Amino acid sequence: MNHSITQLAVPGVQKLVPYVPGKPIEELERELGLSDIVKLASNENPLGANPRVAAAIQAALPELPRYPDGNGFKLKTALAEKLAVSTEQLTLGNGSNEILELIARTFLTPELEVVFSQHAFAVYPLVTQAVGAKARVVAAKDYGHDLTAMLAQVNDRTRLVFIANPNNPTGTLLSKEALEAFIKALPASVICVLDEAYYEYVDPQSRADALTWLAKYPNLIITRTFSKAYGLAGLRVGYSVSSAEMADLLNRVRQPFNNNMLALVAAETALADSEYLGRAIAANNAGMQQLTEAFRTLGLAWIPSAGNFVSVDLRREGEPIYQALLRKGVIVRPVANYEMPKHLRVSIGTEKENQLFIKALSEILNDV
Amino acid sequence: MNHSITQLAVPGVQKLVPYVPGKPIEELERELGLSDIVKLASNENPLGANPRVAAAIQAALPELPRYPDGNGFKLKTALAEKLAVSTEQLTLGNGSNEILELIARTFLTPELEVVFSQHAFAVYPLVTQAVGAKARVVAAKDYGHDLTAMLAQVNDRTRLVFIANPNNPTGTLLSKEALEAFIKALPASVICVLDEAYYEYVDPQSRADALTWLAKYPNLIITRTFSKAYGLAGLRVGYSVSSAEMADLLNRVRQPFNNNMLALVAAETALADSEYLGRAIAANNAGMQQLTEAFRTLGLAWIPSAGNFVSVDLRREGEPIYQALLRKGVIVRPVANYEMPKHLRVSIGTEKENQLFIKALSEILNDV
Repeated sequence: MNHSITQLAVPGVQKLVPYVPGKPIEELERELGLSDIVKLASNENPLGANPRVAAAIQAALPELPRYPDGNGFKLKTALAEKLAVSTEQLTLGNGSNEILELIARTFLTPELEVVFSQHAFAVYPLVTQAVGAKARVVAAKDYGHDLTAMLAQVNDRTRLVFIANPNNPTGTLLSKEALEAFIKALPASVICVLDEAYYEYVDPQSRADALTWLAKYPNLIITRTFSKAYGLAGLRVGYSVSSAEMADLLNRVRQPFNNNMLALVAAETALADSEYLGRAIAANNAGMQQLTEAFRTLGLAWIPSAGNFVSVDLRREGEPIYQALLRKGVIVRPVANYEMPKHLRVSIGTEKENQLFIKALSEILNDV
Repeated sequence: MNHSITQLAVPGVQKLVPYVPGKPIEELERELGLSDIVKLASNENPLGANPRVAAAIQAALPELPRYPDGNGFKLKTALAEKLAVSTEQLTLGNGSNEILELIARTFLTPELEVVFSQHAFAVYPLVTQAVGAKARVVAAKDYGHDLTAMLAQVNDRTRLVFIANPNNPTGTLLSKEALEAFIKALPASVICVLDEAYYEYVDPQSRADALTWLAKYPNLIITRTFSKAYGLAGLRVGYSVSSAEMADLLNRVRQPFNNNMLALVAAETALADSEYLGRAIAANNAGMQQLTEAFRTLGLAWIPSAGNFVSVDLRREGEPIYQALLRKGVIVRPVANYEMPKHLRVSIGTEKENQLFIKALSEILNDV
C-alpha cells in the first residue's frame, strides 16, 4: 500500500481514532443469528416512533427531490418561541454532534487548548483532535466534572471548555450555582460549551436555566438535541443557543443544507408535541427506578444519573459481562474507553426491556 | 455588540461569506403572495418523489428513535456492487457537499493552496476559505475548465484541485482524454477531486469512466450524489470513491452518524430503481431540447450543457430579468456571483414548467 496519501493529511487527522458507536441490533442478529434483541446501548428513546412525527414525515414525502430550507425557518421560529430567544441566536445541526464539531472548527487551531473532564462525552476529544488542538483532560471527582480543577487548567492558550450536564456516560449533574460560578470565572476569551443533550430528563427543580445566562456571558453556548427525549436519534437534529454573533459564525461554517428536509419537519412536529415528551420523561423515571431497585437487590452500586441511562458498577471487568449479555440478546454499552472498565452503561428501556436485561444480568452474575 | 467572539474565530471563518441557495418556493409565496410557483433554481429533479423511495421511508418510520447505522452497511454494499469497487473505497456524506468539506478538512492547512476554475461550483471556495487555505482561481476557457492553465498554477504548496465535470453552473464537460491527461500530469502530492454530481445526465458515450482510473492514480477521488438524477436533494446523500486509504481518512473525520436513517434507506432504494433513473434522464434530454429550441427562437445563446440545467446568455444584466421572472412566479438562478452577470441558470423542469418559464421569459423580453 502506498502510504503517501495518509502522510498528506493534516497531523490531527492522522492521529484520529474514530468514535465507536453502540452495537447495532442488525449486526448482532447477523453475528449470532438471534432475534428479539434488546438494545440498551445508545441512550435511545424506548417509546417507539411518535405517530405525529410519522404522519408529518409522510405528508412531506412529495417534496423529496427539493432541497431542504437551508435556513430552517419554521423549526427556528418554533424553537425561538418555545425557548424565548431570537431566531438569530440559533444554529441547527445534523445532531448536536455537528454543533460540537462546528464549534471546534470555528474557534480552534493547533496552537490552542481545550479543557474537558475525564469520563466526559467521547466526541469532545474527537473534535479537538480533528483540528489538531491540545486536549487537557481533567480528572473527575466522584465521576462528575471537577469544576475547580478544570478552571485551574485554563491558561492563555485555552479557547474552549466542554461541559456535559448531565454528563454521558456517568449521568452526573452539576448544581446550578456551581455551574454559573464556573462560567462567571472563565476568561471572556474562553468559549464555554454547555452540552445539555439530556436536559429534558433532568428534574425541573434541579435544571440550570442556562438560557437566561446568555445575556451575561457572551462566551457561553448551549447545545441540545432531538435525539433523546424527543425520540429522533435516527434523524440527526440538534441545535445550539448562543449570542447572535456566535450563531452567525457557526452558520457561516455549516453546510448550506446540513439538516435534511424530513429531519426539519420531524423536529418541528416533535417540539410541538408535549404529550410524547411527557410520556418519555415519565417512562424514564419509572425505568430508572426499576433498574436501580434491581441493582440494589443484586448488591450492585451505580452512579446516580440525571439522564436516560445509568452506569452500574460490576466490581469486576465489565467486558466479559457485556459479552455474556450479548449472547443472551441484550446489548448494553461497555465504557472501558471512558476509563470505566468495571462499569457498564445501560440505557433505560421499556419496562419489559428493562426486565429482560435484569433477568439476563442476574443469571450471568449467578454463574460467575 | 461585543465583537470579541468574532475575533476569537479562526481567520478563515472570520472572512467566510455563506453560500446563497436558490430561492425557496415558500419564501417567494410569503413575499409576493403567489401560488403555483415554478422553481427552476436548484437543479432539482422535476419528476417528483420516487414512489418506491416513499414506500421504503414509510416502512422505516418505526425505527426513528434508533441511531442510524453509522457505517451505512447496506448502502455501501449496494454501491460497491453497482460500481464494482470495494466498500472500503466508499465514504458516505450528508450530500456530496459534506464530502467536499471532509476532503478540505482532511488535507488542507492555511499554508496550502487549492486550484479550481472560474465559474466552478461555489462550494469549492467556501470549503477552502473555511480552513484558511489559499484559493487559486484559474480563468475559464469558453466557460469550461482550462486544464492547461490549471496545471500551470500547481506548485509546491498545492494540495488539492477541484474539477467539476459536468461543471455547475455552466454545464461544460471535459473530454475523457483531456481529463485523464490532466490527472496523470498532477504531482502525487496533489489530491484531485473529480466532482461528478451530474454524472448520470451525461451521454454515456461522452462519460469519463473515472472509477477505472483509481487504481492508477491514488491521489484521485470521485464524488457523486443522490440529489440530482436520483431525486433525493431533500435527504442529503452523497458519496465518494477513492483508494481505501483515502476513504479511511475521510471516515475518521466524518461524524459517526452523518447520514440519517431515512436518507440511507432512501438512497439504497433509489439506487436499485433503474426505471426512475431512466425516466429522469429521458425527461431531462427532452426538456433540454425544449428549452434550447425556445432560446433559439428567442435569438438567445446558451452554454451547451451536459447537466440538468442550462445557462442562457441574455446579452444584458440578468438580475432585472430574474426579478421580472420572480414576479411572474418563476424562480431561476442568477449567476452574477459566478462572474456571469448576463446569464441566468435554468434547471430543466417538467414540460409544463419549462413552457411556463419560456412564456414568462418571452413576455419579459418583449417588454424590454
